[in-house]
Amino acid sequence: MLSKKMQSQLEKGSPIRRAFEEGQRLGSLYGKENVFDFSIGNPEIPAPEAIRKWVRQIIGEDSRSIHGYMCDAGYEEVREKIAASLNRRFGTSFSLHNIVMSAGAAGAINVIMYALLDPGDEVILMRPYYPGYQSFILNWDAELVAVDPDPEDFQPDMEDFRRKITERTKLVIVNSPNNPTGVIYTEETIRGLTEILREKQEQYGHGIYLLSDEPYRELCYIDTYPEEELPFWTEYYENTIIVYSFSKTLSIPGERIGYFVIPDGAAGSRDLIKASRIATGMLGFVNAPSLFQKVAGACVEIKADIYDYRRNRDLLYNTLCRLGFTCVPPQGAFYIFVKTPGGDEKEFLKAAHACRILLVGGSAFGYPGYARISFCVSYDKIKRSLPAFEKLAGMMDL
Amino acid sequence: MLSKKMQSQLEKGSPIRRAFEEGQRLGSLYGKENVFDFSIGNPEIPAPEAIRKWVRQIIGEDSRSIHGYMCDAGYEEVREKIAASLNRRFGTSFSLHNIVMSAGAAGAINVIMYALLDPGDEVILMRPYYPGYQSFILNWDAELVAVDPDPEDFQPDMEDFRRKITERTKLVIVNSPNNPTGVIYTEETIRGLTEILREKQEQYGHGIYLLSDEPYRELCYIDTYPEEELPFWTEYYENTIIVYSFSKTLSIPGERIGYFVIPDGAAGSRDLIKASRIATGMLGFVNAPSLFQKVAGACVEIKADIYDYRRNRDLLYNTLCRLGFTCVPPQGAFYIFVKTPGGDEKEFLKAAHACRILLVGGSAFGYPGYARISFCVSYDKIKRSLPAFEKLAGMMDL
Repeated sequence: MLSKKMQSQLEKGSPIRRAFEEGQRLGSLYGKENVFDFSIGNPEIPAPEAIRKWVRQIIGEDSRSIHGYMCDAGYEEVREKIAASLNRRFGTSFSLHNIVMSAGAAGAINVIMYALLDPGDEVILMRPYYPGYQSFILNWDAELVAVDPDPEDFQPDMEDFRRKITERTKLVIVNSPNNPTGVIYTEETIRGLTEILREKQEQYGHGIYLLSDEPYRELCYIDTYPEEELPFWTEYYENTIIVYSFSKTLSIPGERIGYFVIPDGAAGSRDLIKASRIATGMLGFVNAPSLFQKVAGACVEIKADIYDYRRNRDLLYNTLCRLGFTCVPPQGAFYIFVKTPGGDEKEFLKAAHACRILLVGGSAFGYPGYARISFCVSYDKIKRSLPAFEKLAGMMDL
Repeated sequence: MLSKKMQSQLEKGSPIRRAFEEGQRLGSLYGKENVFDFSIGNPEIPAPEAIRKWVRQIIGEDSRSIHGYMCDAGYEEVREKIAASLNRRFGTSFSLHNIVMSAGAAGAINVIMYALLDPGDEVILMRPYYPGYQSFILNWDAELVAVDPDPEDFQPDMEDFRRKITERTKLVIVNSPNNPTGVIYTEETIRGLTEILREKQEQYGHGIYLLSDEPYRELCYIDTYPEEELPFWTEYYENTIIVYSFSKTLSIPGERIGYFVIPDGAAGSRDLIKASRIATGMLGFVNAPSLFQKVAGACVEIKADIYDYRRNRDLLYNTLCRLGFTCVPPQGAFYIFVKTPGGDEKEFLKAAHACRILLVGGSAFGYPGYARISFCVSYDKIKRSLPAFEKLAGMMDL
């Protein structure tokens, strides 16, 4: 009785969700404290106190101005605050008209793809990639084209990128700080990618959109960008769409709140903004959740204490290296991408499971032979997991 | 640069959204109090005080248990509360596994359609119908098949229904209390429709799903069902899917919170539940907004004071009849479907606009020659609008 598309998905399922549910199951069997679930990006670090404060403050207002319908792009005053913050931080000149509130980054990306993609259009992803992109591409019967990374530093391979762009390329997705590698793209990478895009636009005589998916923008641990900001892609390439989510920065992923930015300079900007607002309705989002639009607007420059994540990263990364694992050094986000010793991903995940460590295999990210460790958990949990990782290293003969 | 589908939508737009935005524009020109915007179902009656109370209470809990990811179907304890409430009220025997939390009814319907529909499958709607259904059908390249009403009482025409069901019919949508007519289906209608469905299932040898879209379930003004409940469709037909939204009952449409119910007895129930959960992820909803899941769970049997709506209905309906308009008597929801005097819908809407009354034409609902008046506004606004309606009656030579 199911649609053919969904029938095909039913067997497959989501490997991340599956690991998450397996974690819940094991937790109820052996006690939560004896299961080391590193499968999902569900921040265990509390939301900043400002969230509670603003919810309490806003809920005191007239219910009709906080729980009602509003313009499908979201509350104007919230979009103004976001535009002002971006302009102050990145020297851009957005107005509220360039900002559309969304149900997180996932909601934003699906809306944008609906607005842009015809069946057969090609979307370029950089390996390894967030598995959700695959679903959004499948929704609109577009084609996924994957670009290989340089296996040394997990920056994209520029020559492979150039080769993979065709007449049908409509959209390129970048994600830095990256899920699942934790890598931050260098300015050289940004310049390289956008230079090639400009060449190819000229060659094919039409625009190619770049979608920068930035839920981890505020989670950056490298010293090149200590107190300053990561480069902002719109400054390098006109046809850039920025997608942002408050999920990670504010530890509120369940609230489904984010936004996207379509600059005036992007090709067909006005129509694209209009189309993405229509798509928001057509997909049943209608609008981003209203109370949390206001909360996000009030907290637009607040973030969770990333010292906690940095501490987690340092302990886990250093331990894994000491135990003989090979990892990509994570510069941002909250993931470590570890090479599976011996190369057999399934065997490695099985061994980890035997140590009650839950990870997601690189295959889920289009890059087998690795596993993702999500370290947005408590420091205590990481400390308690170290003997399990040591046992795992032993099982893998490291 | 847009997808072909979106290009075609761009010109069309949403007539309801357009009227809403026109209302905002006129309001800022002439003052909000001088514009009578009856275009959108945005409750102007405040949310019950319980909403504020529960938000304040829940926000005091650990942020990780209220703003984090949870199972994609929603919090188990919330789904349990909903199942228990339905079981108590309707004598059903649902468990939490039958309930999936959604981003309102719109989010639910699109998710269900994605799980069910292949291109070319037929979806039957009852004229006049909520325009959002059209979008959801278009998303998955299915075909809309519309059944005519009996123009006397706006119950569906049974013979037309029977004729319109084909081998390709996958889904039938019913919506009672109805948007835009305010009509409640009689038990005779329910028995008639489901009897025909059973016949046709037998004839074609496969199941046909019935989706009952019930955002207005709690808004009922007729005396047949004074303190009791409206009939529950799952009791009449096995392959029923119930869709509910808290938007109207609790005056919180901006929060995007609702749920759907897939009974164990429905064909392929287990797979359909699984598929709709996967679709929730694939469409970028991920999960229904988390804090408001908990709020809805706490308020599952609370509703806004519908006396206000009843008072609005009585005043407006009686006045319109007195002025010579022909209206379908509204038994539930918060809409009056008025016949356009003279029959020219465009002329009528233009005349109403000149009186600063904003309505939505019947064409938007697949039923020209009528206009929808949404009376979920303040009683005061209805009182103030009466001279404008009187002027409109004069302009239409009533």
